[in-house]
Amino acid sequence: MIRTHTAGSLRKEHAGQQVTLAGWVARRRDHGGVVFIDLRDASGSAQVVFREEDSSHDLRSEYCVKVVGEVRVRPEGNANPDLPTGEIEVVATEVEVLSESAPLPFPIEGSAGVSEEARLKYRYLDIRREKLAKAMRTRSKATYLTNEVMNEEGFVYVETPTLTRSTPEGARDFLVPVRLQPGNWYALPQSPQLFKQLLQVAGLERYYQLAKCYRDEDLRADRQPEFTQIDIEMSFVDQDDVIAVGEKLVSRLWKETIGYGIPTPMPRMTYADAMARYGSDKPDLRFGQELVEMTDYFSGTTFRVFQADYVGAVVMPGGASQTRKELDGWQDWAKSRGAKGLAYVLVQEDGTLGGPVAKNLSENELSGLAARTGARPGDAIFFAAGAKAASRDLLGAARLEIGRRCGLIDESQWSFLWVVDAPMFEEDGEGGWTAVHHPFTGPKPEWSDTFQDNPGEALAYAYDMVCNGNEIGGGSIRIHRAEMQQRVFDVLGISKQEAESKFGFLLEAFKYGPPPHGGIAFGFDRVCALLSDGESIRDVIAFPKTASGFDPLTGAPTPITVEQRKEAGVDGRPKE
Amino acid sequence: MIRTHTAGSLRKEHAGQQVTLAGWVARRRDHGGVVFIDLRDASGSAQVVFREEDSSHDLRSEYCVKVVGEVRVRPEGNANPDLPTGEIEVVATEVEVLSESAPLPFPIEGSAGVSEEARLKYRYLDIRREKLAKAMRTRSKATYLTNEVMNEEGFVYVETPTLTRSTPEGARDFLVPVRLQPGNWYALPQSPQLFKQLLQVAGLERYYQLAKCYRDEDLRADRQPEFTQIDIEMSFVDQDDVIAVGEKLVSRLWKETIGYGIPTPMPRMTYADAMARYGSDKPDLRFGQELVEMTDYFSGTTFRVFQADYVGAVVMPGGASQTRKELDGWQDWAKSRGAKGLAYVLVQEDGTLGGPVAKNLSENELSGLAARTGARPGDAIFFAAGAKAASRDLLGAARLEIGRRCGLIDESQWSFLWVVDAPMFEEDGEGGWTAVHHPFTGPKPEWSDTFQDNPGEALAYAYDMVCNGNEIGGGSIRIHRAEMQQRVFDVLGISKQEAESKFGFLLEAFKYGPPPHGGIAFGFDRVCALLSDGESIRDVIAFPKTASGFDPLTGAPTPITVEQRKEAGVDGRPKE
Repeated sequence: MIRTHTAGSLRKEHAGQQVTLAGWVARRRDHGGVVFIDLRDASGSAQVVFREEDSSHDLRSEYCVKVVGEVRVRPEGNANPDLPTGEIEVVATEVEVLSESAPLPFPIEGSAGVSEEARLKYRYLDIRREKLAKAMRTRSKATYLTNEVMNEEGFVYVETPTLTRSTPEGARDFLVPVRLQPGNWYALPQSPQLFKQLLQVAGLERYYQLAKCYRDEDLRADRQPEFTQIDIEMSFVDQDDVIAVGEKLVSRLWKETIGYGIPTPMPRMTYADAMARYGSDKPDLRFGQELVEMTDYFSGTTFRVFQADYVGAVVMPGGASQTRKELDGWQDWAKSRGAKGLAYVLVQEDGTLGGPVAKNLSENELSGLAARTGARPGDAIFFAAGAKAASRDLLGAARLEIGRRCGLIDESQWSFLWVVDAPMFEEDGEGGWTAVHHPFTGPKPEWSDTFQDNPGEALAYAYDMVCNGNEIGGGSIRIHRAEMQQRVFDVLGISKQEAESKFGFLLEAFKYGPPPHGGIAFGFDRVCALLSDGESIRDVIAFPKTASGFDPLTGAPTPITVEQRKEAGVDGRPKE
Repeated sequence: MIRTHTAGSLRKEHAGQQVTLAGWVARRRDHGGVVFIDLRDASGSAQVVFREEDSSHDLRSEYCVKVVGEVRVRPEGNANPDLPTGEIEVVATEVEVLSESAPLPFPIEGSAGVSEEARLKYRYLDIRREKLAKAMRTRSKATYLTNEVMNEEGFVYVETPTLTRSTPEGARDFLVPVRLQPGNWYALPQSPQLFKQLLQVAGLERYYQLAKCYRDEDLRADRQPEFTQIDIEMSFVDQDDVIAVGEKLVSRLWKETIGYGIPTPMPRMTYADAMARYGSDKPDLRFGQELVEMTDYFSGTTFRVFQADYVGAVVMPGGASQTRKELDGWQDWAKSRGAKGLAYVLVQEDGTLGGPVAKNLSENELSGLAARTGARPGDAIFFAAGAKAASRDLLGAARLEIGRRCGLIDESQWSFLWVVDAPMFEEDGEGGWTAVHHPFTGPKPEWSDTFQDNPGEALAYAYDMVCNGNEIGGGSIRIHRAEMQQRVFDVLGISKQEAESKFGFLLEAFKYGPPPHGGIAFGFDRVCALLSDGESIRDVIAFPKTASGFDPLTGAPTPITVEQRKEAGVDGRPKE
């Protein structure tokens, strides 16, 4: 090693020792003949004192230097209690510039705001900054802890292929031409789902992987074309077994990275409950403002808008004092979400009800409204009426927006829960059904024999872990019997031929004594973002891409040359 | 859990307990009214006894079953000392078939040979077999140990992108079309080399990753288009620091998976030495038969073939008794390697020298030959003459072939060493130079200022770890100074423009105080194959591909539809 000590490790005990440090020039202060430099390395920083100007005059920000000097206790009154090395300084006797730095595009020290574009282009400088460096270390620690927990629990780490089979229906698959077999293409996996199920047929019983997954999605703010999941699958298990492993893993991650002890067992909420009370399958329980169903309340109303399949409300504390502009803003907000608007009633301080909707309601309807919704003087009541799913979705979003605008969310809190009993199927809008999870998700035991008779009611044996309103993990007990799988395909309208083409090799494997099995996958990027207090998963990815899949650092993706195209077999025709 | 106990964990202490097991029907023996079944799960197997035929008559091989029964000590004389559960059996009271199995394409139990094609197509059954199941667990353990060692050594795990920039010169890159930016392509990385160097500029100082790498190589027996490497990079280090970390890692892997303590420090051999003595940069030291340089010996020869820049020999013990057919076989072997043939002299038991070459040699040349080469009566001496590199390569290959054919290699031995001081450059055959490693490899300190004056002699600050004749790891101390990098590019004939296009973003990063750094990467598949006694890296990959990149299980790669092609933007044109 070029150094004898790391800068951040120096303490009073080192006083009198000659040390060699290596790192970067962080801060520099000139005090007439004496120059103080904070020398930063991965361990922290230490103050280095140059007695003569001439040995330090060419040291500029972010020069990489090696310094030889003697550690001494700082003169009385000069100690810095905020710094682990604040009691000492190093009096330099030699300095060597290992490499120079050009003027920086943005400062490394301090927390000055920098455009994300610049941060991504000069990512190697962004990672020198404290916040991102810390996030990288937290992610690394979370990676290690995941391996530790899964190892303790007897799981086998298996790497599944990332050059795999494209399926005709695999929209959003990234494709890869195969030079040695022109006209044939691999696909990058959206998840190792089929392989992890094959590994259960293979008898490994407990599989996990930190798996790279790929999804060629449309532009979405906080998505990346490649992402990482903690992928888990187990044999001979029931829902509670998978949930127990999930809680053990997540508890350990939170405890050992940020010191938070998650109360376990985590609460469970049914999907139906979550939708009714929060208008979301991933409710944020850090604040109240639950949705209030008003359908029965308005069952006899003469107000046309509320003559609907579903009427619901959510209260905005203090919302009655919003300006006309703010209230109009809510209408725009609702319209941007595809709704017609957001009906509201304002509860004035004196208890009278205002706003355009109030005029359309009967005395009776008005008089009980505050009590029914829990609104107090000064609050606003927002309504959604119409189809149940869309209305709840709107109210759920309004609830979150209220939480943000009114500062109702205690950001220091953690809310974990499991959302269970999701429906197996949902209508596809064309008279058929699609799988809410995927077609291998099993029914809850009580629906085993009858789900096909009542697809809209049937519940899946599925579970999602939700943290602060984010779905951070999801999984299910899978189908392992051919007969049951066939009934699911029948509901989904998947023909034998289509099933064969899509997952024939899995169905073939299931002929050879497949064990009952289930699993879960955690979104590792999101987990790390939560642990690092990152705003985006980009804040926990070393080299992320923009929403359009562009990498400002390397310039990827790029056009390819005619020769590359030819060489890669892009335009080859498959042999018959 | 469906079970209360794993089959392999049952012992005498469990006698009298009621247990529920779940697993697969491994072996079945019928003894008039009593049926014995070995029930296998991931933990091992236990004997289950069915007293009445009727509860077990439909249990066939590899049915997945749940069994409830009572553990009892086996009747006297029936214990099986070879089995951890051999002292007990489970008397079944209930059995439930969890799933049936179709007739198997090959037996799971026993070690019967099975074609690799069948093993790959039914990989999930192959993994049920003991050898592959064990290899999967060994690999998992090696993965865990790697994380443990690197964590202890203070390394930060960072995931680098796998959708990255294709370079015009990036032959053998797999390419990926980008739907959202038609006409633009990502490339899958051949290694994280550039990113790990960027992470040093970023100040993380100690990086590692179990990185998936991709290389679209021509058909080669033991290569896979995707493979895994343990990728390591460190700042402020010298060669010895990287070597120390590499030895720590590999020692721990060998010790804790197979119980072998590697003597450390491992021996080091220079590249020049390895080439001269073994004709290989990855010598297998488990046997002797070193190459003998004969150039000076034959400097005055009249035998035209030996009037060459280089003449070398290698001895085959007992080779004089080979039949004419065997000796001809060596000629074919040499020709298949691109040589003209393999000259030989046979040392008869009486000490006389035979074979066609002997006739062309002088008395003097013949008389000293055995002593000089170390050949004893009964041995054959093989010769190669011509260009030094090609001749040594042929003799090195002949040495390995001799080792195999003569059983000289003690397969129970391990031979580890570092090969150091490789050349920086080699002639490209067109009057220029190419980098032996890559263009960021630094020169040895003594060549820092002068490598450009003597490119053919300059030594790189590079090191390869060799195990039993396999290069299992390789790395170097990198260049971190722009001025030195420019001199390397000059030697390589890389123009400013070309450097910019290939690795402009790395050169840009190096403007901002890059630290001195170096690293290494280990071929994880090969390491696991060595630890598992696998013949091929396919034996330690859960779902490998054939040499042509075909996956017999999923059928990947496949043709894509016109819609997929359109959707993926394969034929899009980049915007100007």
